[in-house]
Amino acid sequence: MATHKLLLLPGDGIGPEVMAEVKRVIDWLDRRGVASFAIEEDLVGGAAYDSCGLPISEEAMAKAFAADAILLGAVGGAKWAHVNYEVRPEAGLLRLRKDLQLFANLRPAVCYPALADASSLKRELVEGLDVLIVRELTGGVYFGEPKTITDLSDGQKRAIDTQIYESYEIERIARVAFELARTRRNKVVSTEKHNVMKTGLLWKQVVSEVHGSSFEDVALEHQLADSCGMQLVRAPKQFDVIVTDNLFGDILSDVAAMLTGSLGMLPSASLGGVEEVSGRRRALYEPVHGAAPDIAGKGLANPIAMVGSLAMALRYSFGELEAADRIEAAIAGVLAGGVRTADIYSEGKTRVGTAGMGDAILAEL
Amino acid sequence: MATHKLLLLPGDGIGPEVMAEVKRVIDWLDRRGVASFAIEEDLVGGAAYDSCGLPISEEAMAKAFAADAILLGAVGGAKWAHVNYEVRPEAGLLRLRKDLQLFANLRPAVCYPALADASSLKRELVEGLDVLIVRELTGGVYFGEPKTITDLSDGQKRAIDTQIYESYEIERIARVAFELARTRRNKVVSTEKHNVMKTGLLWKQVVSEVHGSSFEDVALEHQLADSCGMQLVRAPKQFDVIVTDNLFGDILSDVAAMLTGSLGMLPSASLGGVEEVSGRRRALYEPVHGAAPDIAGKGLANPIAMVGSLAMALRYSFGELEAADRIEAAIAGVLAGGVRTADIYSEGKTRVGTAGMGDAILAEL
Ligand SMILES: CC(C)[C@H](C(=O)O)[C@@H](O)C(=O)O
Ligand SMILES: CC(C)[C@H](C(=O)O)[C@@H](O)C(=O)O
Repeated sequence: MATHKLLLLPGDGIGPEVMAEVKRVIDWLDRRGVASFAIEEDLVGGAAYDSCGLPISEEAMAKAFAADAILLGAVGGAKWAHVNYEVRPEAGLLRLRKDLQLFANLRPAVCYPALADASSLKRELVEGLDVLIVRELTGGVYFGEPKTITDLSDGQKRAIDTQIYESYEIERIARVAFELARTRRNKVVSTEKHNVMKTGLLWKQVVSEVHGSSFEDVALEHQLADSCGMQLVRAPKQFDVIVTDNLFGDILSDVAAMLTGSLGMLPSASLGGVEEVSGRRRALYEPVHGAAPDIAGKGLANPIAMVGSLAMALRYSFGELEAADRIEAAIAGVLAGGVRTADIYSEGKTRVGTAGMGDAILAEL
Repeated sequence: MATHKLLLLPGDGIGPEVMAEVKRVIDWLDRRGVASFAIEEDLVGGAAYDSCGLPISEEAMAKAFAADAILLGAVGGAKWAHVNYEVRPEAGLLRLRKDLQLFANLRPAVCYPALADASSLKRELVEGLDVLIVRELTGGVYFGEPKTITDLSDGQKRAIDTQIYESYEIERIARVAFELARTRRNKVVSTEKHNVMKTGLLWKQVVSEVHGSSFEDVALEHQLADSCGMQLVRAPKQFDVIVTDNLFGDILSDVAAMLTGSLGMLPSASLGGVEEVSGRRRALYEPVHGAAPDIAGKGLANPIAMVGSLAMALRYSFGELEAADRIEAAIAGVLAGGVRTADIYSEGKTRVGTAGMGDAILAEL
């Protein structure tokens, strides 16, 4: 049995709490001989800053390069609002994304039938919802230079951020979107603001070219980012795959996640290209939800998105389909059995905390 | 009785249709002696491009500078997808905003009680909703330079957009937001991505400074743009005033508008600073909805947002509060009477087209 090198980066806020439940699931898989792991663990985000003054240490980066896959909890929190911009918690996550070239961020927004009533949208609009947002993750305004704040006269300041996209960056993310659409409902909506942004103009052109050259069997529609935001709220089931840039992807994937009423349930994958020599694809898996400092340390957080991230890693990085299926079935079973953390609680269900949900998942396994 | 210089720019798509109903209301106000107007009319957007190769002519710009207020329908459409970027329809609207320095875009997202069921959200979450989005309109990535597409080797291209904000631009929009909050529920949420953008960092700093120096009586909260998108979907009634930059404002205001189920009902105002000599404040009023080319020319469009834009102009630019009240009361009356265009139709109501809605409003007046 192959041993999988997995790096755990719990991070900040509720990250360590939800990661603790993942560790229990990993132990179970290991003990039962379902899959075998070599686990490393390290700090990222504010936790790393507190320990070494950097949002991720060089040792942790080395572990990240050595790992077959990374599981990350969450980063950030008001506690670090005043640290230097360059070493803020988020910079640790951004460095991981950039240095490992994890350009394809897959964010499924799936509405679990048992939770359709937890959505703020009417049940019929979200029941059965299954949208996949494919977000470009290593380019755009997140990384473009210049990115500066300059002092002008009179105490005035000027801040600059730069959004840059080159054709190849758009090509490769478009390919990922079209390929994934083929395994789903064969429809891609590409989203930008070509009516005000040159990067949007290039985005639209390149996506159309990639479509025309290799993916004419997939239906392609272009929507402006503002319209797409509207359409997500109005009729989310019209979407199959949405492909978009780093910044629009940030907002639209959060909106989509919230539509499902299942935010605490949604894992995501950030994938790099396939490496020439090893044939390996670098990958980081993390919940769509953030660090939620308001509920951190209280044992209230829902660990399902984090446990689901492990299932995604098993499926996409380790080829352990059976183990992935088992975990996902256990999550579904727990939900069907009426076990709920606070975020998804509704009347008549059994309310549990983070560890209680972990217990329920293990019991179901 | 003062004569108000009003410039009408119907634009593209459903713009001319909804503007036609406004003209009937203006005629009525004129004939009844409620208010007196000197009306000019001109082209903008694709319509202007078709006529003179520019998305707005110099003559139309001169009329815009001479007007006390401008009413604009909508611009854009697939017909002009292939015209040169510099003369695309949207460039006409952007030139108006920039040259007239209309930096404050007020986008109310109000849920009309009669229409709460038209929302995709559950009734209890949107009933009584009244959020005001204050969007910076003359800065940010919409206008920053460089804004280019360059050819690289191998047929690759590089596109660049630049987001720039200077302190004074943030200061003045923050003031507008705080002042408006004082006339409402006294709460401002300021939204940016300070965790990845330097402009976001400056935005947050400056808004906090303006707050601390002159508006400590107003509650201020900072939310990241992705969180804000989520919170709008989850619990929109938590918001009173949201102040944000040009690009986030574009997306978040559309999301907020769609939440109300009343997109065809929502007017917006774009205001400049008060001019030193004349004491006049330049202003452009337009519906939040777009050109909707799919239903253009069919007589189906809802003219209420456009008529409501006239009411806003009467109130904010002309000081004609009584006339504004009358129009708004007429709109409310028509809705209470069950008259509906297709976009807001529900069973048991009376379905009408664009002109039918105009008839109903005039009858109610
Ligand atoms: C934490 C933050 C830097 C990050 C982002 O903006 O990408 C987060 O919001 C996300 O979506 O993963
Ligand atoms: C038409 C377009 C340029 C415009 C914008 O992006 O600002 C529109 O979406 C709006 O919100 O007024």
